[in-house]
Amino acid sequence: MLRKEYDHIILLAHGSPDPLWKEPFESLYHQVSQTYGENNVSLAYMELTAPSLEDVVAKLNKDVRNLAVLPLFLAIGRHLRHDVPAQIESLQSDELQIELLPPIGDDVLVKQAMQTVVANHLGKV
Amino acid sequence: MLRKEYDHIILLAHGSPDPLWKEPFESLYHQVSQTYGENNVSLAYMELTAPSLEDVVAKLNKDVRNLAVLPLFLAIGRHLRHDVPAQIESLQSDELQIELLPPIGDDVLVKQAMQTVVANHLGKV
Repeated sequence: MLRKEYDHIILLAHGSPDPLWKEPFESLYHQVSQTYGENNVSLAYMELTAPSLEDVVAKLNKDVRNLAVLPLFLAIGRHLRHDVPAQIESLQSDELQIELLPPIGDDVLVKQAMQTVVANHLGKV
Repeated sequence: MLRKEYDHIILLAHGSPDPLWKEPFESLYHQVSQTYGENNVSLAYMELTAPSLEDVVAKLNKDVRNLAVLPLFLAIGRHLRHDVPAQIESLQSDELQIELLPPIGDDVLVKQAMQTVVANHLGKV
């Protein structure tokens, strides 16, 4: 049973000229879409890799009114401060509200996991 | 009490022209260096942000023999497939072995945390 805060979430990764680069993002997408439904989650790329944010928004179900964009980024730089907000601004309408969430690396769960990974590599008794 | 697999780990982030971009990586570094000691962990950037990998390696304690580089990246692209291995190759010596670890986003702990973050944004009962 799902209580949705948003009608739909788009996971937005950076994109790369390397075709193998996208594998972990596709893997994450498949995990969450299998659990929560393909109608609830999409995957898009900011640049260099398809599909783009525009592609995915154009194919959304027409009953999606509250859309969230979750950046699969570790930090906020030029892209998330300027480029992506400008893309979102041009895609929004009275019928479609789009919220840009903080990047996934900003979440305390991801931060804690990264700390643990470093600790494990250093080796703890 | 620390059982170290490596004498030292360098956390390697991408780097950015945006001066605020590096904050989460510095925050992660401060967390782990406070716990495990500044002698055990350093932070470096591949490009655009200081210090570089070369800077950090040059300042390492001379008793460091087994060094690991842990990329603070979500996926392997051109940088981790070509650029960073080439940097490491030129920094290695008989006295200093350098191992390039998989990127932090490849660790199951980080993957699980990212899945949970997506699930939380979708909203679960």
